[in-house]
Amino acid sequence: MNAAAAPAQPLSEKAIARATAKTFAVLTTLLPDGRPQSHVMWVDTDGTNLIMNTEVHRRKYRNVAADPRVTILLPDIENPYIFSEVRGRVTAEIRGPQARENIEELAMKYMGTAYPAPIQSERVILIISPERVYDHERP
Amino acid sequence: MNAAAAPAQPLSEKAIARATAKTFAVLTTLLPDGRPQSHVMWVDTDGTNLIMNTEVHRRKYRNVAADPRVTILLPDIENPYIFSEVRGRVTAEIRGPQARENIEELAMKYMGTAYPAPIQSERVILIISPERVYDHERP
Repeated sequence: MNAAAAPAQPLSEKAIARATAKTFAVLTTLLPDGRPQSHVMWVDTDGTNLIMNTEVHRRKYRNVAADPRVTILLPDIENPYIFSEVRGRVTAEIRGPQARENIEELAMKYMGTAYPAPIQSERVILIISPERVYDHERP
Repeated sequence: MNAAAAPAQPLSEKAIARATAKTFAVLTTLLPDGRPQSHVMWVDTDGTNLIMNTEVHRRKYRNVAADPRVTILLPDIENPYIFSEVRGRVTAEIRGPQARENIEELAMKYMGTAYPAPIQSERVILIISPERVYDHERP
């Protein structure tokens, strides 16, 4: 993974609001042959980056370890015709107790409960730095 | 675009049901440098392929004209934790009156009205043949 760099284009206010809400984001990573793979994900933000949490045996984690370029679609939770798309790359990852605590924080945000699923390998936080942010409004 | 071929993996019943419902799909195409781009789209199916409708000046159309490999995320409209992901490629396109009629059919499906937005260039139907279909169930 590359070292963190200043984002090429900062998150918009709408992208921050959508990443803060209980939004079901769509993370797209690149398979080894360059084809895209998409998955629905919980999401959060520190105001500068998007934050996701996965496990190290997952295809999407192995994808970003090989090619950190991703795009994240943040649907508006009120209006299905509008959304933010955040293109960027995974610039850092965090494993260990902090990643385990973070998935509990996300479960509390989305479900109001402890994380209900078994941990199958090791949790990992993905820090995604934005490079291009697009807020789609209805035409 | 390549000639249509038999799909490597046919659409699942769940993918067909989700493409038939008023699902807001996420289409991901590949930019010229290989980065993914995602956009929310109306969707339909003929039972074998997924069908989308765009305009020829759009970035996503220019993307698939150069590289037909796409993935389409079909969220379940009842449960945000489950979805189908259909990876495949655009194997055919249809322009002209049929594409103009098709956008009206999609508007009727989703909105129950005539298509409300101005046509900015030329409408084009994208026929997306599945190669790998994944139905995600909640763990």
